[in-house]
Amino acid sequence: MLFKDATTEEIELKMQESWMAFHQYRKFPLSKRATFMRTIAEEVEALGDELLQITGEETNLPEARLRNERTRTIFQLNSYADACERGDWLEARIDTANDDRNPPKPDIRKMMVPLGPVVVFGASNFPYAYSTAGGDTACAFAAGCPVIIKAHPAHSKTSEMIAYAIMKAVEKNNLPAGVFAHVYGKSFEVGKSLVMHPFTKAVGFTGSFTGGKALYDWANQRKEPIPVFAEMGSINPVFLLPGKLTESAPELAKTIAASITLGVGQFCTNPGLLIGMEGNGLKEFILALGKEIKNSVPAKMLHSGIATSYKEKRKLALAQDNIELISDLEVEENAEGIPTIASASAHAFLNNPVLHQEVFGPYSLLIKCKSKEEMLQVVQHMEGQLTASVMATAEDLQHYEDVVEQVKNICGRFILNGVPTGVEVCLSMHHGGPFPATTDSRFTSVGADGIKRFARPLSFQNWPNEVLPDELKNENTLNIYRTVNDHLTKKIIE
Amino acid sequence: MLFKDATTEEIELKMQESWMAFHQYRKFPLSKRATFMRTIAEEVEALGDELLQITGEETNLPEARLRNERTRTIFQLNSYADACERGDWLEARIDTANDDRNPPKPDIRKMMVPLGPVVVFGASNFPYAYSTAGGDTACAFAAGCPVIIKAHPAHSKTSEMIAYAIMKAVEKNNLPAGVFAHVYGKSFEVGKSLVMHPFTKAVGFTGSFTGGKALYDWANQRKEPIPVFAEMGSINPVFLLPGKLTESAPELAKTIAASITLGVGQFCTNPGLLIGMEGNGLKEFILALGKEIKNSVPAKMLHSGIATSYKEKRKLALAQDNIELISDLEVEENAEGIPTIASASAHAFLNNPVLHQEVFGPYSLLIKCKSKEEMLQVVQHMEGQLTASVMATAEDLQHYEDVVEQVKNICGRFILNGVPTGVEVCLSMHHGGPFPATTDSRFTSVGADGIKRFARPLSFQNWPNEVLPDELKNENTLNIYRTVNDHLTKKIIE
Repeated sequence: MLFKDATTEEIELKMQESWMAFHQYRKFPLSKRATFMRTIAEEVEALGDELLQITGEETNLPEARLRNERTRTIFQLNSYADACERGDWLEARIDTANDDRNPPKPDIRKMMVPLGPVVVFGASNFPYAYSTAGGDTACAFAAGCPVIIKAHPAHSKTSEMIAYAIMKAVEKNNLPAGVFAHVYGKSFEVGKSLVMHPFTKAVGFTGSFTGGKALYDWANQRKEPIPVFAEMGSINPVFLLPGKLTESAPELAKTIAASITLGVGQFCTNPGLLIGMEGNGLKEFILALGKEIKNSVPAKMLHSGIATSYKEKRKLALAQDNIELISDLEVEENAEGIPTIASASAHAFLNNPVLHQEVFGPYSLLIKCKSKEEMLQVVQHMEGQLTASVMATAEDLQHYEDVVEQVKNICGRFILNGVPTGVEVCLSMHHGGPFPATTDSRFTSVGADGIKRFARPLSFQNWPNEVLPDELKNENTLNIYRTVNDHLTKKIIE
Repeated sequence: MLFKDATTEEIELKMQESWMAFHQYRKFPLSKRATFMRTIAEEVEALGDELLQITGEETNLPEARLRNERTRTIFQLNSYADACERGDWLEARIDTANDDRNPPKPDIRKMMVPLGPVVVFGASNFPYAYSTAGGDTACAFAAGCPVIIKAHPAHSKTSEMIAYAIMKAVEKNNLPAGVFAHVYGKSFEVGKSLVMHPFTKAVGFTGSFTGGKALYDWANQRKEPIPVFAEMGSINPVFLLPGKLTESAPELAKTIAASITLGVGQFCTNPGLLIGMEGNGLKEFILALGKEIKNSVPAKMLHSGIATSYKEKRKLALAQDNIELISDLEVEENAEGIPTIASASAHAFLNNPVLHQEVFGPYSLLIKCKSKEEMLQVVQHMEGQLTASVMATAEDLQHYEDVVEQVKNICGRFILNGVPTGVEVCLSMHHGGPFPATTDSRFTSVGADGIKRFARPLSFQNWPNEVLPDELKNENTLNIYRTVNDHLTKKIIE
C-alpha cells in the first residue's frame, strides 16, 4: 500500500514541528509570507502536465477542467499574497495617547495576529483549488499560520505532488520545515487526532455535512475549543418568478440545465432546488428543461464513494410520494452520474424533510408553488444556503418583494438572473452561509477575506514606537491603511 | 416575589415578536439604527440619580463608580452609533463587471448583514456597561439585530429601569416593539430556553467560566449551532522583569496594589498573577506590596454569591502546599473581599493546576522564578488571557525577548509598564483573548469592532444598481469607505 495512514507518533512529531515553526513563522513580515506563497504558485505550475495526467486518473475529471482549476489555484495563491501584503485584513487600528484627559488615555494599537497551526482537510471535488495548496492553505499561510494537510484519499498522488511543491517553496524561502506538513489518512482516527491535538488552533474543511459536522463537534469537545470553518455544501435554491418565466423560459432552461450538469453536478454550488410559480411559463420551462437534460450525457464521478452515494440518494429522493420525474436518460445499467430532474408540489416539499436534503450530483428538484404565500412558506422552511438565485424581471422583484427579502436572509450569496455555479475568486465573494451551509456564517472560504478565519486581533497598550510591529509603527513604512483615531488613513503619525 | 422567572410561553411569545421585528429592523438604514442608540443613551441619562441609588443598593458599588460606569455606557452607545453610521464595519467590497473577460466577470458586491435576534446575558460586575443597555446590546442594535436581555438577578431593579428606558427609545423611534425584550430568570432553565430557541441567532455573555461555557455548549448542541461570544474572565498575568524591579519596585507595588484592590477586585482584568524574577528587586517589591495591601480596606462585594465564592476560592488557594501569605489584613470575622497576596515558587505553580484558577476578587498570587527558563515554562503552562502585562526596561525587553514573544501569543491585550484594569472604549481596544478567556479569540466585546460578532457578509451578484442596498450603490450617498476592485475608496462608481 502506497499511502499509509499516519501513526499517532508521526502525528505527534509533525504537530511538535508545526508548533515550533509557528513561533518563527508568525514573526515573519508580510512580504516574506507573500513571497513564499508566490513561490508555491510557481512550484505548482512547474509540475506541468504530469500533474494534470495523474489527477485525471485519480478523479475522472477532464483535462480542460483540471487545467482551469490549476490556473485558479495559482491565481488564489498570488492574489491572496497580494492581499496579505496590502494588509487591509490586519484591521490595524491606532488610538494615540492623550495625557490631557483625566485619567490619561494610553496609546493603544491593534492588529491581526495568527491563531497557530491550522489543519486543512482536502476536498475531493477540488483536487487543487480546495485541497493541498488550495484556498484554506493560502489563507492560513497569509495569516501567519503553519498548515497541516490531511490529504484526501481520493487523490493521494496529486496531494503528494503538490505537497512536494510546497516543501520546495519552504526550502527555497529558508522557512522552518514545520511550516507545512502532509498527512495521509483514510481512517476517521487520523482526522480526529489532528483536530484534537492541543497544538492545532483552527481547522479548514470543504466537504460533506457529515464530515464537517464531525470535525466541528470534536473541536468543540476539546479542553480548549478551536474554530472550525467547514463548508458543507447546500442545495442552492433557484427561484423562478412568473414574469421571467413568461419572458424567457427556453433560455432559463438552457442555462439552468448547463449549471446542473456542469462537472457532473459535483459542486457545492450546484442548483439542487428550483422553485417555480405554476403557470404557462413554468410548463414551458419544464418541457425545455426536460429536453436539455435529455441531450446531456452521464459521466464518471470523482470516486466510487460519491457515485454510490449519488445513486442511493437519488433513488431515495425519487422514491418519495408525489414525486414526478421530469427528465431521465436512457442509460446503461451501471452508468454513473445520471442527470436527473424531478418535481413535487410545494405541499409535498413542506411536509417531507427528505426532499430538503442535498443529492450531491447532477440532480435537481423542481417545486411548484400555487401562490406567493406558498412560495413564502417554502423559503421559511429552508435551511441556510451558500447561494440563492432569483430569476426575475424588474416587475417580478416588485411583486415578490417579500419573497426576495426572505430569500436574502438565508443565503451567503444572492444572485439575480444567474446560476450559482462559477465562484469568482475576488474580495467581494462570500463563499459561506448560514448553517448547515457552513459552521460559521461570519467567514468565507473564497476570497482574501478568508484569511481572517485564521487570525485574531491583538492590542498593544503603551508600547514605544521602536518595539511595535512595523504594521503599527508611526512611520507606516508598509504603507497600509490603518484607522487612526477613528479615521481610515495611510498617513504617518506625527 | 417581585421578579418572576419567565415562563416557557412568555419566552416563546417574546422570541416570536423578536423574529418578526428582526425582519423589519434589519432593513432600517444605519442612520435610523444610530438615532435609536442615541435615544437610548438619552433615556438612560434621564433616569438620573434615582438609578444610581437603586443600583447602589443592589450591588454595593459606590456612587462615584456607578456614575463613571453610566457615563461609559452612554459613551459606548453614542460612539458605537457613530461607528455604525461611519460604516467601516460593513466591510463593503465591490468588484465591478468585466464583459471582456472569458467567461464574463459578473458584478459582485458584499456587505455585512445582521445575524438575527441576539440574546444578551447581563453581567453582575457591570450593571450598566455590560448589562441591559451595555456593550453587547449596543453592538447588536448597530448590527441590525433585535436584543433579548436576560436580566442579571443580582440587579433586577436596575435592569428593569434601563429596560424601560430602552422601550421608551423604541417607542420614540417608532420601531417594532419586538426589537427589544427583557426577560427575568434566576434559574438555569430560562437562560437555556433562550439560547436553544430556534429564532435566537447569537449570544453575548460576560461572566464566569462555568456560566459562559454552559451557554457555549448548549449553543453547539442545537440543530443549528449559533455563535456565542462569552467573555469568561482571566487571571491577567503581570510579568515583573528584573531591571524594572531594581529601578522602581516601590512605584510598581503601589500601582499594582491599586489595580488588585480596585472595585474590590471584581474586574475581569484584575491582575491575579504576578510573575517575578528572584532577586533584591523582587524582595523590595514584595515588602512594598505587603505594606500597600495592609493599608487597603476590605469592602462588601457585589452580592453574597460572589462574596462566598471569593471566600472559598481564596481559602482553597491558600490551603495549597508551599503557598506563602505575603499580605493579609486583620479583619473582623465576617468581612467580605479581604485583599490578599500570596506567593509560590514557579516549581509549585507548574505542578499545581489549582494555582492557575481565577480567584475572582482582590486576590493575587506572586510566582517567583529562579531563571529565565523557568519564567518561559510558566508562560508555556498558562491558558489564554484577556490581558498580559510586562513591567520592563528597554534592556529587560532585549534580554527577555523570548519570554515577551511567548506572552504576546497567549493574550488579547498586551501591556507595557501598565496595569490591566481600565479598559478603554475605543476601536483599537481588543477585549477578547484565547480560550478560556473568551469562547472565540477572533472577536471583542469592547470597542465598535464588537459589532462584527453579530453580522455576516452577504454577496449580491448581478443586481442592478437601483435595487442594491444604499451601502453598495454606485453613488455611495452614505459616503462610506468601500474596497472597489481591491482599492479602498469613498469614490462613487462611474
